[in-house]
Amino acid sequence: MPKVTEEHRVARREQILDAAIRCAARDGFHRMTIAHVIAESGLSAGAVYGYFRGKSELIRAVADRIVGAFAGALEEVTAGAGPVTVLDGVRAVIGHIDAVAEASRGRVPKLAVHAWSEAARDDEIADVMRTEIATVHDAWRDLLARAERDGTIPPGLDHGAMARVLIGLMPGFVLQAKVLGITDAETYVAGAEGLLGLGGRS
Amino acid sequence: MPKVTEEHRVARREQILDAAIRCAARDGFHRMTIAHVIAESGLSAGAVYGYFRGKSELIRAVADRIVGAFAGALEEVTAGAGPVTVLDGVRAVIGHIDAVAEASRGRVPKLAVHAWSEAARDDEIADVMRTEIATVHDAWRDLLARAERDGTIPPGLDHGAMARVLIGLMPGFVLQAKVLGITDAETYVAGAEGLLGLGGRS
Repeated sequence: MPKVTEEHRVARREQILDAAIRCAARDGFHRMTIAHVIAESGLSAGAVYGYFRGKSELIRAVADRIVGAFAGALEEVTAGAGPVTVLDGVRAVIGHIDAVAEASRGRVPKLAVHAWSEAARDDEIADVMRTEIATVHDAWRDLLARAERDGTIPPGLDHGAMARVLIGLMPGFVLQAKVLGITDAETYVAGAEGLLGLGGRS
Repeated sequence: MPKVTEEHRVARREQILDAAIRCAARDGFHRMTIAHVIAESGLSAGAVYGYFRGKSELIRAVADRIVGAFAGALEEVTAGAGPVTVLDGVRAVIGHIDAVAEASRGRVPKLAVHAWSEAARDDEIADVMRTEIATVHDAWRDLLARAERDGTIPPGLDHGAMARVLIGLMPGFVLQAKVLGITDAETYVAGAEGLLGLGGRS
């Protein structure tokens, strides 16, 4: 029954990634070891190595899963019924961060802030982060192109530079809302709405 | 000559704070010890303890110096010749981060990302950060009130929520420009200009 086998493989892989997220949220990627992940997953070493050849592959898979879902939230907006606005994108990513934070009981935001700090001393983690951010950058550019086609933003703007700032909004939300508890999704989206609505006068 | 003595005290205090910044950029605040700071400063233990009674006081003083200068960059815009715009504030803080990063040879941005990560596991550091961010939040609210008086933003907007997002732009700049090297101040300010110029259509 190849279908069941494939479903089983996917479920096992997710089980390992969940264990890795728990370890990395606690210790950071740097101090996470395959031995910790094996113990945390409840699987055998052979089972875990059957999915990931080593720690580097595991870090990339965790980052891919987290950031892939994040980019996916934007792609869904871009592919949806129009007219698409920049604020739709902001609302989608903030809502996504909120949902992931709750589903992971705060572990994914913790893992994220640890990873930013580790990127400052570990070239491999910085490199994974650059690759993942490029995916989100592409997703924002696609959304901005769609918004331009829909006429909700004027033509001729620098979508690449705007995408940098839209990406840049997210660490500040994670830090203030999920680490420090001094804001929430509703306030942040309202603030973004205010700023995006200013128009040429600013 | 009390004036010389006061100048001498200020210079000594700065020398200790510089040493603490070097230590915290390397190890994070958590692993920084007073003994490290004493060794790094080249002063005697007695001299250092004459300025700071312990590690907690030193952490607060480092955070105060860094964030105080940051808020000061905004206050300067708010107190300047009008009309003041939101983009003036963004340009000032991004320019300030750039200047501090260069003057500290990248140490202050490193210290910042380490501190965000530590705030996720250390209540004392989270508390210092909340206090410091409140100062920047006030500075942004003052700038927005001035911009409203100058007529560069419409009346009746939620300045508190907008200030949250304007603060939130900064960690994403530090991360992308200073840790990962995938953007720069000019691009980020251009992106912010694009977004702030969108107007009601978005």
